[in-house]
Amino acid sequence: MALRGERVTMAHGGGGQAMRDLIAEVFTGVFQPPGNEDQARLMVDALQEPGARLAFTTDSFVVSPLEFPGGDIGKLAVCGTVNDLAVGGARPLWLSASFIIEEGCEIALLRRIVATMAAEAEAAGVRIVTGDTKVVERGKGDGVFITTSGIGVIPPGCDLAATRIAPGDAVIVNGVLGDHGAAILAARGDLALSTDLQSDCAGLGHLMQAALAAAPGIHAARDCTRGGLASALNEMAAEAGLAVEVQEDALPLRPEVVGMCEILGLDPLYLANEGRLVLFCPADQAEAVVAAMRARPEGAGACIIGRAHAGQPGRVTLRTAFGGARIVDMLVGEQLPRIC
Amino acid sequence: MALRGERVTMAHGGGGQAMRDLIAEVFTGVFQPPGNEDQARLMVDALQEPGARLAFTTDSFVVSPLEFPGGDIGKLAVCGTVNDLAVGGARPLWLSASFIIEEGCEIALLRRIVATMAAEAEAAGVRIVTGDTKVVERGKGDGVFITTSGIGVIPPGCDLAATRIAPGDAVIVNGVLGDHGAAILAARGDLALSTDLQSDCAGLGHLMQAALAAAPGIHAARDCTRGGLASALNEMAAEAGLAVEVQEDALPLRPEVVGMCEILGLDPLYLANEGRLVLFCPADQAEAVVAAMRARPEGAGACIIGRAHAGQPGRVTLRTAFGGARIVDMLVGEQLPRIC
Repeated sequence: MALRGERVTMAHGGGGQAMRDLIAEVFTGVFQPPGNEDQARLMVDALQEPGARLAFTTDSFVVSPLEFPGGDIGKLAVCGTVNDLAVGGARPLWLSASFIIEEGCEIALLRRIVATMAAEAEAAGVRIVTGDTKVVERGKGDGVFITTSGIGVIPPGCDLAATRIAPGDAVIVNGVLGDHGAAILAARGDLALSTDLQSDCAGLGHLMQAALAAAPGIHAARDCTRGGLASALNEMAAEAGLAVEVQEDALPLRPEVVGMCEILGLDPLYLANEGRLVLFCPADQAEAVVAAMRARPEGAGACIIGRAHAGQPGRVTLRTAFGGARIVDMLVGEQLPRIC
Repeated sequence: MALRGERVTMAHGGGGQAMRDLIAEVFTGVFQPPGNEDQARLMVDALQEPGARLAFTTDSFVVSPLEFPGGDIGKLAVCGTVNDLAVGGARPLWLSASFIIEEGCEIALLRRIVATMAAEAEAAGVRIVTGDTKVVERGKGDGVFITTSGIGVIPPGCDLAATRIAPGDAVIVNGVLGDHGAAILAARGDLALSTDLQSDCAGLGHLMQAALAAAPGIHAARDCTRGGLASALNEMAAEAGLAVEVQEDALPLRPEVVGMCEILGLDPLYLANEGRLVLFCPADQAEAVVAAMRARPEGAGACIIGRAHAGQPGRVTLRTAFGGARIVDMLVGEQLPRIC
């Protein structure tokens, strides 16, 4: 073992031998990127089909705590970027991973995070092909931040976009909402909440491909991360120039999440998810989408929750079981920081 | 102006309206990425030539201070990733940019950084097509960290790699060494050094293309960033299984940099550069490379500094003006932290 010591020091970011040892032993030894160069060089057969497009996305992950029930920052960093690609109809292919490590970070923690990332990447069918590490002084970071970027291929003819949403489209989600946000909140420990909740963090690439195979008429999809379902629906409704109505009694919510939100004065519709997407498709294809999703574990809770209609553009309303309605607005200010 | 206040708050990272306003006004309003989706969707004509390869690279930037003579973290973040693509023979096409912002960061500072990035991207002929922002609490970051990822296309037949370096190859750099590291060190202010030194930070995509056009026989190139020329040469010599000899009197060094290094006990060969590359080419093409580089401002100081030879694999030596020689080893430990 070339790596000395149990914690990251500033020397591990200095460009010399210590950095090379850290990278070789903790990162590239696990990710096994192709080649020795700083850049990955990739054959692009998948992109050479006429009409194929390249999808490119990036996200930084700063979740606190770094490890939580149901996952860790590494799982988020892989799934988050895979999902950003997937909801646009892209088949995820390659990821980059860049680490900003705080001096003093335990190397054992980094190893656990990297192992999670490798496992999630394999499950998602993507390769982590290039990366970087930087080290900042104690008190100038928070353990580790990870930025992943992803490249995928959008096959010819696939064109998902919120602007394609049409009046009458069904609104579908793939499972219970808010588990990630609630699990992170509980994991912080400063609320003295005891719960068995786990993050919903999951890669949705295979799920999205299955949905598209079952219903090529899907118009648009988005992952419900920061800001939750409410924010995703508001964005999509605004871009579509349509209104969206959600049936309150159709919303899949765990009693524990509803209860925690009642205690804390939060709205579960704004809680972050990391393994949930919302999609719009013609009503006559909705059952096919739900069935295709339910055939996979990450879509086991799939259901129709509402519809798009030609109401006030950008307006999202919640229809209650008693027939009343309330406006579900964009989140103003913050609900929960450092959730992803 | 939708943006209220002069400093970033936690609400700017919360997924709601404040975040959308910050992103729209400070980031996407300047970068003008294509489309409304979270992912960029790109036509890949340049990649559809048979034999073309895609180059993919990433780097995080944590330089301190964020603004320094000759540049800022935004210039580094664009040039660094452009250069990682360029030295592999890739033509840089698209960048992603992800920001981890510390609560309290001045919005005016972010605007300056983003303006620099937009200008550098335009100069380099690349587009910033996708991005992300996260906000961390005061004391959990350091102003702003930026991670850029880059995609480029490597044309058919272009195959630069350290393993292609051959005995007799000339070693060429494009200008004076160590200015970036010395300028950052002076800018930190805690050394009471007064200097007019400016960072050498520059995009090298056009320079590298000009060199390749003049001398298609170039075997390998690398940017001399963290760890400086010495680290780049050690890496390349090791991968090539060859020795490299550098002529001390051929090394382009400013007297101010040499003087600062003498005072501080540093070696300028290990100082970071952000606009310098080292390349290896057959000796009979070396003059053509130097001439092509000198025709551009970022290559005005190009010169031959040494040669590869069949000595001890991985060994880099410095031949002094008096005929002596010393080994230039990999940097052990750190020289200067937070240099890029």
